[in-house]
Amino acid sequence: MQISSMPLGYNHPAMLKALADPVNQKIIANRPALGVFPGKDWPDKLRKILLHKEIAPPGLSHITTMMCGSCSNENAFKTIFIWYAEKQRGDAPFTREEMESCMMNQTPGTPRFSILSFKGAFHGRTLGSLSTTHSKYIHKIDIPGFDWPTASFPVYKYPLDENIRENQQEDNRCLAEVEELFEKYKTEKKIPVAGVIVEPIQAEGGDNHASPEFFQELQRITKKVLHDAALLIDEVQTGGGPTGKMWCHEHFNLESPPDVVTFSKKMQLGGYYHVKSLKPKQSYRIFNTWMGDPSKMILLEAILETIRKENLLHRVTTVGDYMLKQLMSLQNEFSTMINSIRGRGTFIAFNCSSPELRDTIIKKLLSKGIQTGGCGTATIRLRPALTFTEHHANIFLDTLRSILKQ
Amino acid sequence: MQISSMPLGYNHPAMLKALADPVNQKIIANRPALGVFPGKDWPDKLRKILLHKEIAPPGLSHITTMMCGSCSNENAFKTIFIWYAEKQRGDAPFTREEMESCMMNQTPGTPRFSILSFKGAFHGRTLGSLSTTHSKYIHKIDIPGFDWPTASFPVYKYPLDENIRENQQEDNRCLAEVEELFEKYKTEKKIPVAGVIVEPIQAEGGDNHASPEFFQELQRITKKVLHDAALLIDEVQTGGGPTGKMWCHEHFNLESPPDVVTFSKKMQLGGYYHVKSLKPKQSYRIFNTWMGDPSKMILLEAILETIRKENLLHRVTTVGDYMLKQLMSLQNEFSTMINSIRGRGTFIAFNCSSPELRDTIIKKLLSKGIQTGGCGTATIRLRPALTFTEHHANIFLDTLRSILKQ
Repeated sequence: MQISSMPLGYNHPAMLKALADPVNQKIIANRPALGVFPGKDWPDKLRKILLHKEIAPPGLSHITTMMCGSCSNENAFKTIFIWYAEKQRGDAPFTREEMESCMMNQTPGTPRFSILSFKGAFHGRTLGSLSTTHSKYIHKIDIPGFDWPTASFPVYKYPLDENIRENQQEDNRCLAEVEELFEKYKTEKKIPVAGVIVEPIQAEGGDNHASPEFFQELQRITKKVLHDAALLIDEVQTGGGPTGKMWCHEHFNLESPPDVVTFSKKMQLGGYYHVKSLKPKQSYRIFNTWMGDPSKMILLEAILETIRKENLLHRVTTVGDYMLKQLMSLQNEFSTMINSIRGRGTFIAFNCSSPELRDTIIKKLLSKGIQTGGCGTATIRLRPALTFTEHHANIFLDTLRSILKQ
Repeated sequence: MQISSMPLGYNHPAMLKALADPVNQKIIANRPALGVFPGKDWPDKLRKILLHKEIAPPGLSHITTMMCGSCSNENAFKTIFIWYAEKQRGDAPFTREEMESCMMNQTPGTPRFSILSFKGAFHGRTLGSLSTTHSKYIHKIDIPGFDWPTASFPVYKYPLDENIRENQQEDNRCLAEVEELFEKYKTEKKIPVAGVIVEPIQAEGGDNHASPEFFQELQRITKKVLHDAALLIDEVQTGGGPTGKMWCHEHFNLESPPDVVTFSKKMQLGGYYHVKSLKPKQSYRIFNTWMGDPSKMILLEAILETIRKENLLHRVTTVGDYMLKQLMSLQNEFSTMINSIRGRGTFIAFNCSSPELRDTIIKKLLSKGIQTGGCGTATIRLRPALTFTEHHANIFLDTLRSILKQ
């Protein structure tokens, strides 16, 4: 599914129908610079499509559109930095020194703020977002980056219900590191943490899950009066339905909404939702030529309409539960080869006993016409479209079983 | 023209025809992740459209596609950093220390390299590209950035033919600064310059032109054995025909091709051309989910075909020359109000005697249905589509004359 970016599979009639409409063809041909010349209907489209109450993450009322996941994270960082600086500035205007020093990339106008991220995280590859990405060295080596803090992300033992105490301890270890890094970067390094970025499930890093309690406590630490930083949940890969909810963090019962939620991939265009307090006071602080792409909104509208009409989130949940159950019994049968089955909805993964076995299984599946993906060191991840049914699941399960038997 | 991003104006039949084609509609609906699953015909499309000998900048044989100007510059920087690091590494493999340290954003794996840019430059707003942007403080204030060097860009006296000696001295002053910054960032700061980024005409910064001799000498300094850095010409706003050539730097008679040329806007998709030696040896070093967008290539193909068939580059040159001549006589008539007429093709600008007068003229033009743009402090820039004719020019000139008279 093109690195998890196709929500409805190939040639979906709803998408083809939207593209066959001459009105939509004109919208695509006459692409506006949305930041300055939005079409008259653009605010309404944002309200009806992205800010629709069944689509927007609960509690998040503001939206900024972009074109890809990296740019969404980069601009979300900027929004957080502006908010963080404004809190310190209070109602005071910019100083002359700030206005002049920033033009030469020097303090105080160019401040030394940081974004805290996690080991194994993937948030993109432009220079800012790459500074928060830590999944593979080949993404990062030889590229300059910011000295920003990196905390451990929980590494759980599976099955979860047999390792409750160890996994709680693992949560606590990682959260203590977050606290230490907040302190270290504030006091010692003088690069205070303005925001924390985290994936609800680390995808590229190995489909690493963390407990709702971990995310709840992470939010508490981030928002502590002492730190007063923003929590950014990166839903570029998890957003748009594959976990059975529109946004994966809805599974976590957070005390309050995250401050920012970024998206792209299945959503076709990029962007981020945020709380009202993060809206910059001045215009042109978050801006670029296109600020998103109405042609992608045409597709997104057709996609969201299909999700609603065909109740696809429910299907994802049902089929996902079925897949997990069946994979568990495969794991019992072939426990020396596969382990650590995990997932939400159809966003499912399992580990193989070695990287070599993982690569072999992926290759054999491909030879039977089934595309899966590797992530982490020995993990296979499944990223079907939202239209994946029990029938498709059975084809996959039967094929996997026969490969494991071989 | 949507911040100079529409090459053929609104509702161009060639673009609408391309979008009415059901085959193209399927390409748009079934968007691939081009880095891993390009369509079978994608390499051929790259060759026939972007690498076509009348389209690609002379001497540049390699292309990487992206989605916007900022990402094109960010990834071009990465390509330059990788090349620069590999030169120092020779044939040696990555060290264990490099592989481990880069995962925590620390040296040596995350090196301290820089990109030199110019005052008044605009190269985008993501965190890496923003570190090379210096046009307005509101773009930069409160956003962390890299400590990278910034040299002066020539500020010429107009008319050029009456200020030849002063302007040559201005070139020399700026080039001496470039030399000094290369030295300072290497020896004193220990953040060596791996590449230089420059616009062929500084657009956002005020439509600031520099002489071909300035660019020739800048290339010589950049490529000196002592520095051995890469020259990146940012043609995001100048590329695609508005200066009468496909690429503005073709006006400069450089000794050899620039190492990298970035583009976006009129080209519909983003990306960069580069010399063969900059191609990274390993895969996945320059990568993201989409790596461009075939739907934009459909439009670009129709646009380039129209440019060729209707000989639009020739038209841009002719109409541009006519505009410049007519604006010169307007300047003679209203010399207390407008000055410093300058341009290549229809990429034309002039200064007003004050920012207030500039804003008034823009407003009055708008009230007559003519959209112009402000840039720099008191400059009006014209960014018509390539389909702009002498007839359109006369409408603009007559309206401007009547406003100046008023």
